[in-house]
Amino acid sequence: MQKHSTDSLRSIATEIFAACGTPREEAAIVAEQLVASNLMGLDSHGVLRIPQYVGWIQDGVIQPGAKITLVKESGGTAQVDCGLNFGQVGGQRAMEIAIAKAREYKIACVLVTNCCHVGRLGYFTQMAAEDGMFAMAFVNSSKYGHSVVPYGGVEGRIAPNPISYACPGPEHPLVSDMALSTTAHGKVVIYRNRGERLPEGWIVDASGKPSTDPNVLFDTPHGWILPAGGNVGYKGFAMLVLAEILAGTLTGKAITDEIPDGTNGACFVVIDISAFAPVEGFRDAIGIMTAYMKSAPPAPGFEEVLMPGELDFRIMRERRDKGIPIDAVTWQRIEATAKALQVPLAVMAQSSSASATAT
Amino acid sequence: MQKHSTDSLRSIATEIFAACGTPREEAAIVAEQLVASNLMGLDSHGVLRIPQYVGWIQDGVIQPGAKITLVKESGGTAQVDCGLNFGQVGGQRAMEIAIAKAREYKIACVLVTNCCHVGRLGYFTQMAAEDGMFAMAFVNSSKYGHSVVPYGGVEGRIAPNPISYACPGPEHPLVSDMALSTTAHGKVVIYRNRGERLPEGWIVDASGKPSTDPNVLFDTPHGWILPAGGNVGYKGFAMLVLAEILAGTLTGKAITDEIPDGTNGACFVVIDISAFAPVEGFRDAIGIMTAYMKSAPPAPGFEEVLMPGELDFRIMRERRDKGIPIDAVTWQRIEATAKALQVPLAVMAQSSSASATAT
Repeated sequence: MQKHSTDSLRSIATEIFAACGTPREEAAIVAEQLVASNLMGLDSHGVLRIPQYVGWIQDGVIQPGAKITLVKESGGTAQVDCGLNFGQVGGQRAMEIAIAKAREYKIACVLVTNCCHVGRLGYFTQMAAEDGMFAMAFVNSSKYGHSVVPYGGVEGRIAPNPISYACPGPEHPLVSDMALSTTAHGKVVIYRNRGERLPEGWIVDASGKPSTDPNVLFDTPHGWILPAGGNVGYKGFAMLVLAEILAGTLTGKAITDEIPDGTNGACFVVIDISAFAPVEGFRDAIGIMTAYMKSAPPAPGFEEVLMPGELDFRIMRERRDKGIPIDAVTWQRIEATAKALQVPLAVMAQSSSASATAT
Repeated sequence: MQKHSTDSLRSIATEIFAACGTPREEAAIVAEQLVASNLMGLDSHGVLRIPQYVGWIQDGVIQPGAKITLVKESGGTAQVDCGLNFGQVGGQRAMEIAIAKAREYKIACVLVTNCCHVGRLGYFTQMAAEDGMFAMAFVNSSKYGHSVVPYGGVEGRIAPNPISYACPGPEHPLVSDMALSTTAHGKVVIYRNRGERLPEGWIVDASGKPSTDPNVLFDTPHGWILPAGGNVGYKGFAMLVLAEILAGTLTGKAITDEIPDGTNGACFVVIDISAFAPVEGFRDAIGIMTAYMKSAPPAPGFEEVLMPGELDFRIMRERRDKGIPIDAVTWQRIEATAKALQVPLAVMAQSSSASATAT
């Protein structure tokens, strides 16, 4: 697989988004976040999205450069309307506001509406963690994304709403980012593309019968994703509902209200750790927790205990040194998108040379 | 099974705690919360605890009447030291502070340290919901309670830390209260006492091998509880870690620090819904969500989709009308505790007559 440097991927993404009308500064924000996902091995939220986002711009789903408006503000809370700008741009602005408010009020809650695909949620909580804060983030999706059944039900009623949290740690922040469904839709696509069976307990067919065949999610009638937890799946379901309440209901929207497909609601909660204890001591305590967890002997079939997000930072160190592998199909699509937008070949050439250095 | 009215159970509990040195007002708070648990069918957190708490008072674990001290306060945050008072007393005081702060700053975070067994966490989040607020609560336990393995490990490193959230709803608040482990220690005890096998996937033996035998948790060497999620158990584990960070690390304590056994740390986050949207609209939106979830056809083996906490409120309505059933063993233990404390028989007699009315 061809490997690329972060610099070259960033400049390609920036040029492509700029070429379809995104203010350069905002194009750079989106590019930075996509490449940061690739860097941590989270390729489903990386440059793979470039052709999709360009399509959304052309279809009017994403409104590049739309004004990010502070629509409500009171004490430690605020609400931001992204006007269908990139989720990456709206999310970053909202987290900046949340961090500033947490510095003033020691805890803050910022809601985000009308933002397009919010991307990797952990990027935003990690921003706060790198500023010495604790952050939680919750995201919901429009009803067209309701691919997960409620526990005990057999039709989709909720999206695989992600929950992320992050805080400072000794070597890198502790970052957790996941949905409390068994899986996300995109992950099932990957299994299908590879011709592999799914692990047990992830999906059911249209009648509610458990299946490990990823095609079941795309049959007519199609199947559904289960909340995490198996025979205690009401636990995963309750956490999916929590994200819906914070990222949706709290903004004044009912779960069945029409919101543009491809948009997300989000809720960021940030706590200023120093209101309670020195950040250095907190960081040490996270280090102690990490060592304590990892001191547990591995279970059969495992090599070690991993803390939330630990693997992502391990991949980041490796990819920073050795470059980011991008599969041929994804790369061809990005090249075709660049060509169609007449993004100067110089950029791609620059990228190739950068990637050559990185490999 | 003998049934009792809430009034009689409350007065018995109050008299017993008062008889061992608890200020009457605080005894009534503990009694109220225990009986509220029974009322909702959560008997493991109900009057069953009376003999245990009396034992803890006699052993100096619970310090009835200890001063609840506000040790830190800044913006929307505060930290409360309970001085080993009842968790019910400290928790209620902390939630009152959190609600008042949320009214002022629109969002608040209150940490609770040195409180004895916090009881039913949902009681506190429900308090906020009944005041028109959204609340989340997180609890951790001392390392002696670390009965849950980290995902991929084979020795306990974390407690079945509960997470609760609540918000206003159309008929009653929406209240979720659960640990993101597969089960709690007390639930395994119940299966053992009944001589029943556990559902699959809840526990492992000391070597990490899956088991459905509840005795495995009490063998030498003993087994462990798994985080919720099965083959995605890293999701349950990440939520258990979240509770530890908020209820433990944030207070300045490392997970391995010595804290008195039988005590909990807690973190309450309260959001003033009206900062974002009218509470009435929010309540309606929760009603719409509930109807939408429940409109999903039941899965094989289920009768209906239940929202988090829905069953508890259904039981509450039934028990309010028909009385609270208390099993004979629990009742004998409560009677013996009352007798040993020379709690006047009049109270028990009053209870019997009240229970007769209720049955």
